[in-house]
Amino acid sequence: MADGVELQNPHLDYLETDYLYHLGLSTKDDLEKLFSDVRFVCMGGTSQRMLRFAEHMKRLLNVNHKVQDLTGHGSRFSIFKIGPVLSASHGMGCPSFSILLHELLKLLKYAKCRNITMIRLGTSGGVGVAGGTVVVSTGVVDDLLRENHHFHILGEVVARPCTLDEKLAETITTHGLEMFPDIPIINGKTMCATDFYESQGRLDGAFCHYDYSRKIQFLQKLQALGVRNIEMEASLFAAMCAHARVPAALVCVTMLNRLESDQMPGDEKLHLQWQDRPLKVVGGYISKVLRGN
Amino acid sequence: MADGVELQNPHLDYLETDYLYHLGLSTKDDLEKLFSDVRFVCMGGTSQRMLRFAEHMKRLLNVNHKVQDLTGHGSRFSIFKIGPVLSASHGMGCPSFSILLHELLKLLKYAKCRNITMIRLGTSGGVGVAGGTVVVSTGVVDDLLRENHHFHILGEVVARPCTLDEKLAETITTHGLEMFPDIPIINGKTMCATDFYESQGRLDGAFCHYDYSRKIQFLQKLQALGVRNIEMEASLFAAMCAHARVPAALVCVTMLNRLESDQMPGDEKLHLQWQDRPLKVVGGYISKVLRGN
Repeated sequence: MADGVELQNPHLDYLETDYLYHLGLSTKDDLEKLFSDVRFVCMGGTSQRMLRFAEHMKRLLNVNHKVQDLTGHGSRFSIFKIGPVLSASHGMGCPSFSILLHELLKLLKYAKCRNITMIRLGTSGGVGVAGGTVVVSTGVVDDLLRENHHFHILGEVVARPCTLDEKLAETITTHGLEMFPDIPIINGKTMCATDFYESQGRLDGAFCHYDYSRKIQFLQKLQALGVRNIEMEASLFAAMCAHARVPAALVCVTMLNRLESDQMPGDEKLHLQWQDRPLKVVGGYISKVLRGN
Repeated sequence: MADGVELQNPHLDYLETDYLYHLGLSTKDDLEKLFSDVRFVCMGGTSQRMLRFAEHMKRLLNVNHKVQDLTGHGSRFSIFKIGPVLSASHGMGCPSFSILLHELLKLLKYAKCRNITMIRLGTSGGVGVAGGTVVVSTGVVDDLLRENHHFHILGEVVARPCTLDEKLAETITTHGLEMFPDIPIINGKTMCATDFYESQGRLDGAFCHYDYSRKIQFLQKLQALGVRNIEMEASLFAAMCAHARVPAALVCVTMLNRLESDQMPGDEKLHLQWQDRPLKVVGGYISKVLRGN
């Protein structure tokens, strides 16, 4: 999308008002005034983390205005804006993220934004990769190891490719390694799971009908495919951005090495430090681009 | 589950500490002291609504203690407790709800709770049913019209039946109609969708590659199957509760009739009034059961 956001829905032209229900906004708001300068849309699971990212960007970009949630009474997501950077929470899992993306893509179109880049900043489980490693994804498979996200439309399955912008991934990694020599950053594929326990081969959910050896076998199969981490939104994110022709990147920190364990002991300080690594790497990349070097 | 919660995971016996990561709790907390008297677990999408439900139950059950979020630093869900009633938020979509259910089922087991009933209180789109109607589900289909939830486990598809407790559904409806003659309450099937726009046949998402007549055809097909409303968590909820042998009920209000429109205009006061209907119906049912009549 070198230009404005081109949605693939002719019906929108006939709506008098479009209510972006889960954002608590509508085309009755002056979306162009509020959002037209946006160039980077950064998204992550929790509201708290995306507020931390917004405050981080405020310092980096030297922006003076107060950081506040721009959603109305939607009460489902949070959106913060810092100059040309939008920071939004998407909840957990593809269905939740899907609602945010549908409504954000419409918002970007109505606001006449141009040259948008979408970035997901997340947490993940590492596959043969130590906790604290930042994985910048070069490809995505779902939890049946397919390279498409399978949408269900009017009762039928429609597969759309999970294509990420590989050049963008490489640039984020190269810049990140230059700027943050202490943070381990690698490229690799990401598996997107439909739940946190059984579909990721964990042994510690409420149900588990397989044993340790089948778990390790599954993780090793992923490793052999080039998968370096597992999270719960990648396939939807990659497929929707590709369908909308918006360049997209996935930058997730691993919270543990799943070949070694399933559980994250409660070392909150360390978790928070690790969770902030994608924020630093993406923040560094964006400020570099905006400075034009 | 006439008795305690029997999980189907032998590996849990070997965990020294179980970290219920997304709840910010662990078996190091005195879960038995905190939760052993719980008998009803009520869940809904947003934290705000489940806080409203908790405050409603506090008045109904005449409980004195302060209502506060019992999750630790999980920052993903909220949990409130009012006497024997737990009120928890589950976010949007099956993957998010799945995480809550895995960790809540483990919590209920560790806390030695007995005779648990699980109830989801939600919002939904009506299928040939006017906005404001409360649908108490008697069955669930997914958005490919199957009566199972399809879990992905170690890269393979495992179908588990979406069984709800029909007697429980009937009792909630009968009591509800007696107690709230002004609220329309019906029984019917529920379709569970994987997104809010394309999988529900809406014409107002960022993408739409079908026309009005195909949308109506799909909704009429659902109507003929006995489906009265559409939401995004029913199949996972029904399948997980059935697998854990816990009686479960789904009580959702319709926010519009999807045969008439896709968009919910911003009449916030009316929405809030409707959203509170499942809270009233379920609150009434629970207090009647606890009073023993």
